[in-house]
Amino acid sequence: MPSYTAPSKDMQYVLHDVLNIAASDIPGYSDLDRDFTAAILDEAGKIAAEVLSPLNPVGDTVGCKMENGVVYTPPGFKDAFAQMKVGGWPGIDMPEEFGGQGLPYVMGTAVGEHFSAANQAFTMYQGLTHGAASTILAHGTADQKATYLPKMVACDWTGTMNLTEPHCGTDLGLMRTRAEPQADGSYKVTGQKIFISAGEHDMAENIVHLVLAKIPGGPDGIKGVSLFIVPKVLVNDDGSLGARNAVSCGKIEEKMGIHGNATCVMNYDGATGYLLGEAHKGMRAMFTMMNEARLGVGMQGLAQAEIAFQNALAYAKDRLQGRDVTGVKNPDGPADPLIVHPDIRRNLMEQKSFAEGARAFLLWGATLIDAAHRKGDGAADGLVSLMTPVIKGFLTDKGFEMTVQAQQIYGGHGYIEEWGMSQFARDARIAMIYEGANGVQALDLVGRKLAQDGGKHVMAFFDLVKGFCKDNAETEGMGEFVEPLKRASKDLQTAAMYFMAEGMKNPNAALAGSYDFMHLFGHVCLGLMWAKMARASQAALAAGTDDPVFHQTKLVTARFYMTRQLPMTATHLARIQAGAEPVMALEAANF
Amino acid sequence: MPSYTAPSKDMQYVLHDVLNIAASDIPGYSDLDRDFTAAILDEAGKIAAEVLSPLNPVGDTVGCKMENGVVYTPPGFKDAFAQMKVGGWPGIDMPEEFGGQGLPYVMGTAVGEHFSAANQAFTMYQGLTHGAASTILAHGTADQKATYLPKMVACDWTGTMNLTEPHCGTDLGLMRTRAEPQADGSYKVTGQKIFISAGEHDMAENIVHLVLAKIPGGPDGIKGVSLFIVPKVLVNDDGSLGARNAVSCGKIEEKMGIHGNATCVMNYDGATGYLLGEAHKGMRAMFTMMNEARLGVGMQGLAQAEIAFQNALAYAKDRLQGRDVTGVKNPDGPADPLIVHPDIRRNLMEQKSFAEGARAFLLWGATLIDAAHRKGDGAADGLVSLMTPVIKGFLTDKGFEMTVQAQQIYGGHGYIEEWGMSQFARDARIAMIYEGANGVQALDLVGRKLAQDGGKHVMAFFDLVKGFCKDNAETEGMGEFVEPLKRASKDLQTAAMYFMAEGMKNPNAALAGSYDFMHLFGHVCLGLMWAKMARASQAALAAGTDDPVFHQTKLVTARFYMTRQLPMTATHLARIQAGAEPVMALEAANF
Repeated sequence: MPSYTAPSKDMQYVLHDVLNIAASDIPGYSDLDRDFTAAILDEAGKIAAEVLSPLNPVGDTVGCKMENGVVYTPPGFKDAFAQMKVGGWPGIDMPEEFGGQGLPYVMGTAVGEHFSAANQAFTMYQGLTHGAASTILAHGTADQKATYLPKMVACDWTGTMNLTEPHCGTDLGLMRTRAEPQADGSYKVTGQKIFISAGEHDMAENIVHLVLAKIPGGPDGIKGVSLFIVPKVLVNDDGSLGARNAVSCGKIEEKMGIHGNATCVMNYDGATGYLLGEAHKGMRAMFTMMNEARLGVGMQGLAQAEIAFQNALAYAKDRLQGRDVTGVKNPDGPADPLIVHPDIRRNLMEQKSFAEGARAFLLWGATLIDAAHRKGDGAADGLVSLMTPVIKGFLTDKGFEMTVQAQQIYGGHGYIEEWGMSQFARDARIAMIYEGANGVQALDLVGRKLAQDGGKHVMAFFDLVKGFCKDNAETEGMGEFVEPLKRASKDLQTAAMYFMAEGMKNPNAALAGSYDFMHLFGHVCLGLMWAKMARASQAALAAGTDDPVFHQTKLVTARFYMTRQLPMTATHLARIQAGAEPVMALEAANF
Repeated sequence: MPSYTAPSKDMQYVLHDVLNIAASDIPGYSDLDRDFTAAILDEAGKIAAEVLSPLNPVGDTVGCKMENGVVYTPPGFKDAFAQMKVGGWPGIDMPEEFGGQGLPYVMGTAVGEHFSAANQAFTMYQGLTHGAASTILAHGTADQKATYLPKMVACDWTGTMNLTEPHCGTDLGLMRTRAEPQADGSYKVTGQKIFISAGEHDMAENIVHLVLAKIPGGPDGIKGVSLFIVPKVLVNDDGSLGARNAVSCGKIEEKMGIHGNATCVMNYDGATGYLLGEAHKGMRAMFTMMNEARLGVGMQGLAQAEIAFQNALAYAKDRLQGRDVTGVKNPDGPADPLIVHPDIRRNLMEQKSFAEGARAFLLWGATLIDAAHRKGDGAADGLVSLMTPVIKGFLTDKGFEMTVQAQQIYGGHGYIEEWGMSQFARDARIAMIYEGANGVQALDLVGRKLAQDGGKHVMAFFDLVKGFCKDNAETEGMGEFVEPLKRASKDLQTAAMYFMAEGMKNPNAALAGSYDFMHLFGHVCLGLMWAKMARASQAALAAGTDDPVFHQTKLVTARFYMTRQLPMTATHLARIQAGAEPVMALEAANF
């Protein structure tokens, strides 16, 4: 059975050595000293390793069951959920006013990686609740907040997001679910929603569904969509639970993975709902939290890559097979461990350099969200909005790819469910799809974000990379990290300029290259992170750190990323510069 | 439910327009005129589409079951197997002397793609039998051939290959299974084998296991391994079935995919076995058929990519979502079909250009095997041996990747088992692992095949590409195909020279780049195939073909591969030239 060891040490390194969070002027960050964050990460890591990780294969093999309309989570989930609640983990970064711990989002993201790595399907129950609660926090009336938030922050009640319908996923303007206004100011919601994660289960007294629907007579298409709170059990004026609402789970889906999370078809049959935010502004309300939600999905990509890497690494050290061609390494054994073989190492280094680079990228992104929310930093908001599709799309694509590579280390055993490596790949696969499929992320990046505010944010990104390169151009030993980053960043700029020049004439010239651009951007971001880590580790070594091996290892891994991964930017650029013609030339009928 | 349409037209194009097989002087090829191959492909395509494809999801969801030592295949498999036998499909390319059809291997490969695409798990039962029968054909005594081959060619008896043990997969020298010689010339085989595909099932009267084991007192390691025939039911002298042999299935594995094929733990408890080939030369005997077996697995990669592409394409044409940014394409509908969107097309073109390029590559490889076997062409044998790890490793890696991309077209529905796209990805995943994991293929390519016979075969490959480029350099309209191929081939040569120069000093300099080299090689092969197809289609158009759209589509797809896929060779080369240092620098303990 796979195991999980929380990479808290690496998180501490990123938070303090690389991002230096405690010195930031973001409100709440001054409390985040090394000891404090270490205590939180260790505690979260313990529950992840000891409680959530052992339940992960149980969730996969037993899955959720539905009987007579009741959905049962896998054995052990309820107890674990209770433990998470007692620890206050679901509300770690929610306001104290509603029972949360009030910590910054960056800490929620860090512990979220622990939980998600250990058990993605389980962690989604609280993740969805977090998203729904955040939306109510941003758009709810004082009454709505008072009614729902204390319960949701504590996870006594969980939450869901209801967007997709059978005939519409990305294109929500086609939505058919209707909300009829009632005399008392409430609405009757009728329609069917699909792919509702955590839509029904047995771990909470109530489930608060946030449902997109159209109020009859409103504008056509996406502009006529409103957002509603539709509780599974109606809430009385005194806050106690009342009658069951007319919402029910039609079935739970059989999926490729995340079997421990109930993915439900939800039927709304004139269910009582309450408008959340303004009428016809539902998309805006739902998407207020989009940067956070998408960053959270990017985190899932990293998290599955991390746990898959840990287990592949242990297997590579343990499994004896073949001999080192340069000389026997384990003369007393019948063979050398797998890790002596260059191609096994190539595979492991790809996983390692991804996981650590992605972690830095993600936590940096989380600090930008904190800067935007906690001190109204518009530049940070713009920058993280720009990078959100990259975080989501690149980290989930690569995260899945890394789980597949980790599985490969096990040979035939990787394909046998008993060893657990298949589950990591199957679970990681969903993150490329939900919360906006990765092709939609690429479209968002190239079609919207690049040109947003006159291209201000992408210019800010380039300035940031340029500034780092300039500041470190003369720093001894940094040349080998700065030069590849510069080249990669130049590829990204060339691609952006190509889009500007050609996209004016033909939008398809940009859109046909959008997916490559998202990956190109992702490599530049990870390249930047590795250059920053190299800088931080060189500084630590120069200052006489008491853990030189850790920092030397960072430098080796940075070198690997620069020489073995970053060259990918050239191919992405070449593909982009091939333009729309090869992609668009065929008539649909002739495919 | 997914469907399958046999791509017989594309196969006909490759066989006749590109490879011009009927004009070849390989014995047996002169019969392969257009009408004859069309009749075979259509018939095979029909059974694949109508019988095997509908059983594919059944195999996945019901799987194999074991009760009291008996393994039951999924409902419908037995009947379908009987139909395949009646049609003579399992023995299509086996000698007529033993009941086969005597057709060349290239035809077995072509129909094999149909069957494997429609139902990989099912087709493996006959595929394993084919491999075992071929081994007996190559190494068996006259008696052994007479006893086993007629039954195996007819698939009345099926076959297996028993290599792996719990503690050894790639490194078979560690093998513990023992074969004790008996007075009557037979052996008692004792040991445990794992991951035995089709090891036990209910579709044949007998199962002929080919088992690697060590005869006590023989050489240590891999040189002391011999190959044995161990039938499930002993065969009497008159050919009738006798007593049950001491071999049994211990359990069937729960796997990520290919649930319709029983992957068995096989226990040999003093089972009666018969030496096949020479003592201690078991590896050689087992690996005689390796080129074929590995080409067959590469074919599985293509086959799953093909069926996944077909279904993704149909979905992309059918599913209405969003609008074409350059102007509405489906004004009467609520939205345009997915296929209008550039990134969906980018994805589909990647799948299409892979499947068609891979098909040409594979069938070309099959003709080389025929040339080697049917007319003793040593150059063809050397060339296909060189390319075998590329066919296996590159086509299965890419094949899996394409199934994942096809799944992505479906958005959330791709993750739901009901739609069938998950199965294609889960089934395709195994082909990267079995018959030598792809890292082992890369090692075989760089560590053995490159330098084989003084590098003669790789030089022959380069000459072949060079010759094609030279012959077509002046051909009107071929420049856009020849130039990228030349560049890519130059990257491959540069990489090979780097290995030669650096690998002398440090073998790890070559081995650390082996995986990238395998992919670089694969791209050059597909680039060559696309250039050849472009040439063939230009010729057809010039000659006034009655199907201009087909050939124009080929040219568009060739252009896509050249401009959007082939640039990948530059990145592979850059990674290779980064050398061993970034890969090998870390101590194992510091990962």
